[in-house]
Amino acid sequence: MESPPEKAASQAEAITMSGGGVYSLATIGAKHVIDAALPLVEDAIDAVPEASFAEGFTLADMGCADAGTSLDMVGAAIARIRSRVPDVPVTVAYTDQPRNDFNALMTNVHGLGPFDAYLDDHDDVFPLASGTSFYRQALPPESLHVGFSATAMHWLSDKPGDIDGHVHMVGATGADLDRFRARGHADWRRILSHRAAELVPGGRLVLVNFCIDDEGRHLGSTGGVDMFDTFAALWQEFLDEGRITDAEARSMTLPQYYNTLEEFTAPLVDADEEAHRAGLRLVHAETRVVRCPFAADFEQHGDAERFAHAYLPTIRTWNESTFAAGLDPSRSVDERGRIIEDFYGTYRDRVAADPEGHGMDYVHAYLVIEKVA
Amino acid sequence: MESPPEKAASQAEAITMSGGGVYSLATIGAKHVIDAALPLVEDAIDAVPEASFAEGFTLADMGCADAGTSLDMVGAAIARIRSRVPDVPVTVAYTDQPRNDFNALMTNVHGLGPFDAYLDDHDDVFPLASGTSFYRQALPPESLHVGFSATAMHWLSDKPGDIDGHVHMVGATGADLDRFRARGHADWRRILSHRAAELVPGGRLVLVNFCIDDEGRHLGSTGGVDMFDTFAALWQEFLDEGRITDAEARSMTLPQYYNTLEEFTAPLVDADEEAHRAGLRLVHAETRVVRCPFAADFEQHGDAERFAHAYLPTIRTWNESTFAAGLDPSRSVDERGRIIEDFYGTYRDRVAADPEGHGMDYVHAYLVIEKVA
Repeated sequence: MESPPEKAASQAEAITMSGGGVYSLATIGAKHVIDAALPLVEDAIDAVPEASFAEGFTLADMGCADAGTSLDMVGAAIARIRSRVPDVPVTVAYTDQPRNDFNALMTNVHGLGPFDAYLDDHDDVFPLASGTSFYRQALPPESLHVGFSATAMHWLSDKPGDIDGHVHMVGATGADLDRFRARGHADWRRILSHRAAELVPGGRLVLVNFCIDDEGRHLGSTGGVDMFDTFAALWQEFLDEGRITDAEARSMTLPQYYNTLEEFTAPLVDADEEAHRAGLRLVHAETRVVRCPFAADFEQHGDAERFAHAYLPTIRTWNESTFAAGLDPSRSVDERGRIIEDFYGTYRDRVAADPEGHGMDYVHAYLVIEKVA
Repeated sequence: MESPPEKAASQAEAITMSGGGVYSLATIGAKHVIDAALPLVEDAIDAVPEASFAEGFTLADMGCADAGTSLDMVGAAIARIRSRVPDVPVTVAYTDQPRNDFNALMTNVHGLGPFDAYLDDHDDVFPLASGTSFYRQALPPESLHVGFSATAMHWLSDKPGDIDGHVHMVGATGADLDRFRARGHADWRRILSHRAAELVPGGRLVLVNFCIDDEGRHLGSTGGVDMFDTFAALWQEFLDEGRITDAEARSMTLPQYYNTLEEFTAPLVDADEEAHRAGLRLVHAETRVVRCPFAADFEQHGDAERFAHAYLPTIRTWNESTFAAGLDPSRSVDERGRIIEDFYGTYRDRVAADPEGHGMDYVHAYLVIEKVA
């Protein structure tokens, strides 16, 4: 049993996306990102050796949350698989950490939620869910044909420390940044190592991960107001006003690392790296910016109040659990709830008062990786 | 897409066991039943052709609820598999209907709940969960080595009607019983047909299903007070007192069928049956009574009040969702809750006042079925 890694993953496993299907409903932008990756997924399917899936094809969505954002992509992927081998049984393996909302996932996948289900369009498709995070091997050796992941692998296996005066590594410097970089690099290699074990020879990965692009852009920072700076500034104000303690302000650090394209590709092009020795090779790498759908809507409707109310929920889906956990547990549940509501309320008011430049544009690396046959 | 069967399964899919791990905590008797089946599971593992699992072994627990009751059995089964092929990767496929509490399942399986996790003792074990009920094919063709199920397959795919003056087919007669028998026989064949598709040649099923034994005994009726008669009598009292309507009393019918051993084995020994043609053969069939653990405790401690309080939760785990759904939705949620609490409270008071003969002894058929190699 890989005990130390499992323990190391425990903190990341405490991070949860919003449950009950709220995640997918609030994150239409994440769906746009996934839909944009479909041509890469289709190319990956086309490239897998046909002999390897005569008996069945396994597609995985790793870090799937409630699976709502990838339903359309998975349906299209099944059609592509069947265009190669008609009627081949397809297993769709959904993986996430064990505290993910698997009830929402099953509801969405089986068409009992707010979305159309691809199961209605295709026979002999077998959805399966794993509560094993991507920091461990979730599937049997050489069983995976195409592994997909979107907007998930920036979550570190553990928080390597708190960041002085900021909430995210994009605002870290010096020793703080070094600690996050070291953990980020080690975690990326650990993710690749487990995927190398899972892939069939000739299998492929299509990984769509948050990144810092060549122009220094990243999620929520593409030239306008920097979203992470806003988080940091707001918590600093809460600290200055005595509404949170210094220890709480420091605890708001998000356990994330955004790699550059160079950092992502290094383990795949250097023959001394373990991932390369395990047979993983870089097929394709690019970065893309997908516009914040709420900021794009605002450009059309021009209603600042409406924009602010539409925009905030997408932020809350992914950072509320970290910020709420950063508050001292000696505070009552009600008090903690009030602080969190005030925090997002203040953010919302700020956007409504001066909307220009706000938004959460997505900046992703789109990576295609092959395991040599 | 098998649309009509899926629609037919919709009612059974509305039946839910208690969530949040409560199911396994309240049903220690169900765990005894599973533990008692371990020798049959070990024999089944021993009988699977070794060549079929050189690359990996798949064990399934079908109708798993929150998986807590089978953790020990699965751990022992993995050890047995590894005694045949050391280090072989093992997939543990948990299946249940899509509204099952999969969050509790993942919590239990990954050792984050109240139980020890077999994952701590074994490397290269891959738990996967399916929200596909046993009335459909949950796993790819010829991928399953040993399929296990306990105390699950008595739930019908749909309720074939209400029963006059009773809540269960064990108290039905005439046309009511005929309707339940026809549905029970068809459903059992449908279950076998999907399992035949899933099993590898030489694979085996160990199915531990509620039954009516050769002495006419069944769950909660082994010579003492008949549990189902008590349910029926209590709802009749509630009807007589005007606390529920006639329509509500009729709606309390449980969508279950208990087969006899002869009914269970018929599709496996008759060469004209579809299951037999699909290669399924009977290896072993017996019935067993497992004593109600709460009634057994009462024999030791003799405290009627304590017995009544310990006994009722195990009943509520499996029939509360049916009884609550039987109440008219025009009643307020509070009112429905009050009626349900009163119902179980009345039952509890009755047990406390006159405990002799009460209890929920388990009466199961233990079936071992082979798919011919």
